Amino acid sequence: MKSEIIAVGSEMLTPFRQDTNSLYVTEKLNEIGVAVAFKTIVGDRQKDLVNAIRAALARIDILILMGGLGPTEDDLTREAVAEALSLILRRDAQLVAALHTRAAHWRLPMPSNNLKQADVLHGAAVLPNPNGSAPGQWLDTTFAAHRKLILLLPGPPSECRPLFDAECLPRLRAIVPPRSIAKRTLRAAMIPESQADKLLAPIYTTFSDVETTILAHAGDIQLTLLCSKSSAAAARRRVDELAGRLEEALEDWLYSSEGESLEQIVLYYLGLRQATLAVAESCTGGMIAQRITSVPGSSRSFLGGAVVYSDALKTAFADVPPQLIAQHGAVSAEVAQALATGIRLRTGATLGLGVTGIAGPTGATEEKPVGLVHIALSDATKTESVEKIFRGDRNRVREWTTQQALDLLRRRLR
Amino acid sequence: MKSEIIAVGSEMLTPFRQDTNSLYVTEKLNEIGVAVAFKTIVGDRQKDLVNAIRAALARIDILILMGGLGPTEDDLTREAVAEALSLILRRDAQLVAALHTRAAHWRLPMPSNNLKQADVLHGAAVLPNPNGSAPGQWLDTTFAAHRKLILLLPGPPSECRPLFDAECLPRLRAIVPPRSIAKRTLRAAMIPESQADKLLAPIYTTFSDVETTILAHAGDIQLTLLCSKSSAAAARRRVDELAGRLEEALEDWLYSSEGESLEQIVLYYLGLRQATLAVAESCTGGMIAQRITSVPGSSRSFLGGAVVYSDALKTAFADVPPQLIAQHGAVSAEVAQALATGIRLRTGATLGLGVTGIAGPTGATEEKPVGLVHIALSDATKTESVEKIFRGDRNRVREWTTQQALDLLRRRLR
Repeated sequence: MKSEIIAVGSEMLTPFRQDTNSLYVTEKLNEIGVAVAFKTIVGDRQKDLVNAIRAALARIDILILMGGLGPTEDDLTREAVAEALSLILRRDAQLVAALHTRAAHWRLPMPSNNLKQADVLHGAAVLPNPNGSAPGQWLDTTFAAHRKLILLLPGPPSECRPLFDAECLPRLRAIVPPRSIAKRTLRAAMIPESQADKLLAPIYTTFSDVETTILAHAGDIQLTLLCSKSSAAAARRRVDELAGRLEEALEDWLYSSEGESLEQIVLYYLGLRQATLAVAESCTGGMIAQRITSVPGSSRSFLGGAVVYSDALKTAFADVPPQLIAQHGAVSAEVAQALATGIRLRTGATLGLGVTGIAGPTGATEEKPVGLVHIALSDATKTESVEKIFRGDRNRVREWTTQQALDLLRRRLR
Repeated sequence: MKSEIIAVGSEMLTPFRQDTNSLYVTEKLNEIGVAVAFKTIVGDRQKDLVNAIRAALARIDILILMGGLGPTEDDLTREAVAEALSLILRRDAQLVAALHTRAAHWRLPMPSNNLKQADVLHGAAVLPNPNGSAPGQWLDTTFAAHRKLILLLPGPPSECRPLFDAECLPRLRAIVPPRSIAKRTLRAAMIPESQADKLLAPIYTTFSDVETTILAHAGDIQLTLLCSKSSAAAARRRVDELAGRLEEALEDWLYSSEGESLEQIVLYYLGLRQATLAVAESCTGGMIAQRITSVPGSSRSFLGGAVVYSDALKTAFADVPPQLIAQHGAVSAEVAQALATGIRLRTGATLGLGVTGIAGPTGATEEKPVGLVHIALSDATKTESVEKIFRGDRNRVREWTTQQALDLLRRRLR
């Protein structure tokens, strides 16, 4: 069965805001075997809404409308569905009472306009919304002699998502032919993009029954494999078969077979080896520490570190000799290695990571371009460093550097 | 004139990827007075594409298609427009030659399929694409007896955006009735959300000719004011008038009248006072340093700091007495103040910022809940701290804490 999502709200037609509910709902729909064929974003104008609803009903089986159920004059989804399908809206006495109770409880005023939230499409079931005042609606109807399901959901994510899960998914499951979905997410770090395509496309394109999505961002690629079959075992088998072939092709670029992030994997290895980590960051300015500490429980393996933006702090916090900086420059393999060793010794960590580079847009010299970074890793037995030149703006250089640093750690700990 | 954007590509109907070109193009369209009335996302199926194109042409004047112009079998935008409008596609000899030249230059193979990129809709102008192989197309035509403009743009952002700016905007400006647009962006920090609405809505709703968009995120609100008039001076006057009233209402929550970020404003004040800053972060784990160092040139005022995740590092890098931690706990006003003072003295900075808290999901005690944070600021004359309890998950607590810390700095420096 094919579906369309219509997100309702003029704010989503500005340059500033995007609908995100549809991503959530799409994931849930795909998991029960319903494809999303169209998404439409439309403003709070009844004429446009009616137009979008009619266009949708002419091309799909399941229509999911999100937004426009509130109490204001701009909330027109109920009215538009009624117009598009020539249905009557009736004011539901029970819902009216519930609105009064709610207003009294929160000591809110109750303007008469609020009561439009109690208007129900003829033939629709009311979907309770414990997180807001406007209930959802479920309409199982016919349009141009075909059966159509029309779902009306509130717009705020905190209302839309729980309501969809609790009220819509079970109803859809009972109607949609049962499909079993298997899913796997593989992740790999620092593989050159051209290489990834050349390696992977010949494999996944031969699995026409597995949908493969590849996302790439700053040295990270994420492959999501999705297979829908009538049997759970068959779906699982195909996904695992493809995953196995892709894992083999990705060699040691692969860091995760079940979707974990690179920082989660690094912390997993640190825990396994009972090792601790400290970092001394210059150009990344705290980004590495921030990514590691985004993982709950990271304090078990991560001691902390220093953001050594000024040369004086490189000496004060990581004991980098001033003459080393004077001789090689702050952005050099020598200083990166001194940072890694220095922070390790100063903190008593098992591993020390040191990063220095030119994030740009200024700071380049004739020999040292914007994007040049040195990343060093030190433990009791050795200190090694890599030199890279990353392209892109300041933020991109910092993101790539952070990813490269975490990958260096992963490869050492494996 | 009303427009619709159709983003073409099956990947944008998955839970993983969203169209972003439309935000860029919407901003540019709004600036010349063209509203976007609908956005449609459709997959790489010709039948669906034709359906979406016909639905769009029946309701708007300007149709902008993005994506589906490449060389693969899935790239069907040209074919779909031809079918929807019953137009012939002709293979352009000049474009064929250019494709061959390009392939030779990059030493790429030239499968015959590639040549479909040279197919031009009858009556369309070819829009050169210096950043890719598929040119755009501009079609000024009629549909159901109305004039329609149809723009075909390549999907990759690095091709779509420059091509739109260079080729489409000038052509649109020549057709669209001239409008002058004035725009201002105000930003405010840490204003309670309920208060913001109560203060601001009664003001901006009386300016029906200025479009006001409010974005809120983790203690930050951004108000964008947009006004379109036939005279530039009139548009500017209305935007400035509304901005003035909103600025007055926002009092000292307002930190920016021209859209600058909070970290930019903090760095601006630091530069003005010739002051330097160092930070000692526990629960934010580098997020404050990372935000400050995201601004180019931040090294002039930001020395760096320490990520003091372990108690030992609080002592090693910021001289927090171990007995102070033992007595009050690591999450306490006393330790936050000691961190701020310690990092200031250790680094020689004018100002020291210290942060400690419980980001969660674990780490709470009976007296200290998840979300409790202490933020302290120290200079040569005084050290003060604030206590806050932020709600939400780990990431949200860290984002709110970072915003609160930067706002504390701003208020001290003002």
